[in-house]
Amino acid sequence: MRRFLVVGHRADSTGYFKLDDLPGSGGRMDILAMSASAALFLSHGLRQDTEVWLVLNGGRDGKPRTIRMIGSEARYLFPDERNMASMIRNALIRYKGKGEMESTPGMYISDMDLKDALRRVSQDSELIYLKEDGDDVRKTEIPENTTFVLGDSEDLSPAEESSLMTMGAKKMSLGKTHMHTWQAIAVMNYELDRSAGDGDGTL
Amino acid sequence: MRRFLVVGHRADSTGYFKLDDLPGSGGRMDILAMSASAALFLSHGLRQDTEVWLVLNGGRDGKPRTIRMIGSEARYLFPDERNMASMIRNALIRYKGKGEMESTPGMYISDMDLKDALRRVSQDSELIYLKEDGDDVRKTEIPENTTFVLGDSEDLSPAEESSLMTMGAKKMSLGKTHMHTWQAIAVMNYELDRSAGDGDGTL
Repeated sequence: MRRFLVVGHRADSTGYFKLDDLPGSGGRMDILAMSASAALFLSHGLRQDTEVWLVLNGGRDGKPRTIRMIGSEARYLFPDERNMASMIRNALIRYKGKGEMESTPGMYISDMDLKDALRRVSQDSELIYLKEDGDDVRKTEIPENTTFVLGDSEDLSPAEESSLMTMGAKKMSLGKTHMHTWQAIAVMNYELDRSAGDGDGTL
Repeated sequence: MRRFLVVGHRADSTGYFKLDDLPGSGGRMDILAMSASAALFLSHGLRQDTEVWLVLNGGRDGKPRTIRMIGSEARYLFPDERNMASMIRNALIRYKGKGEMESTPGMYISDMDLKDALRRVSQDSELIYLKEDGDDVRKTEIPENTTFVLGDSEDLSPAEESSLMTMGAKKMSLGKTHMHTWQAIAVMNYELDRSAGDGDGTL
């Protein structure tokens, strides 16, 4: 199982953002929507073994919320940015503020903050922080069940990074080129497909 | 120089599509916009050595048009899908229908169809058709000046593929996994960065 966890530092967590202004009113919700799409979508369907978690830290009520999408369960998702952001917004608006709710099939919303989310994903997966100054992913074996943690347009803060590293995360890199988060997720999926044998005739 | 040429089979070429409905009224303009973003954008800026060409074949007036964006010249571009589509729409609406016009700095629009566009890019670059059943890109040296040709949500038609191959294109593959066009472009940029030494300490 592959899991991508993206930290949206200014991403709105209340649902009161405009679909016509995802970068501004959504607090770079464009990046989170495209990250979800890069993680889950193939050309004609969803990756069945993949999850994406979006930690939204920029709500005007000061309350972080976490969206989980599960590739094998998800329905009614489309890969374009606006449709993806619209599903996220619907989940946020319908959420009552306690516990976890399934807003649409395969899409869950909760009041987890980053530490809660990291605690939970660390129970069934290894943690890898994807950042330009980590060790080269091509020179390391990636465990089958891994959660890849990424920032949005900002890297993790020192406090966030410290929370992550004290939970045993390894810092790994796709190269020194600073890609957008959604580009890095597409590339990481590709590297995993490749190491599973795609392209060399063994798959 | 890297160049990505994407064929938008149903993509509107008149500018009369809705920014709120890029997949439908735009004829999968979401894919073309994200492809431009994947080709040109790094996390904090534009790739200076990269161009993207979008051939729009789905205009209601039956006239194909081609948009060119040049990374080293481009201004006023943002990486989110809606902003990118909005710049494309503005170019289409302002275009008078003959010759080539610079709609905003680094963004050009013309009445080239796919054959015209292929003829032009073949003058200063090798042609590679990126498709799942081609030869593995990892096992081949990519020429410095290359135009990578991709379909949108549809592969090239037999006639389009034939035009391309008779101009000397090679068919190459990033693996058997069917990615979205914009994902494949992000991955191809990454492979080129890698073969230029990014990540192995030689860059």
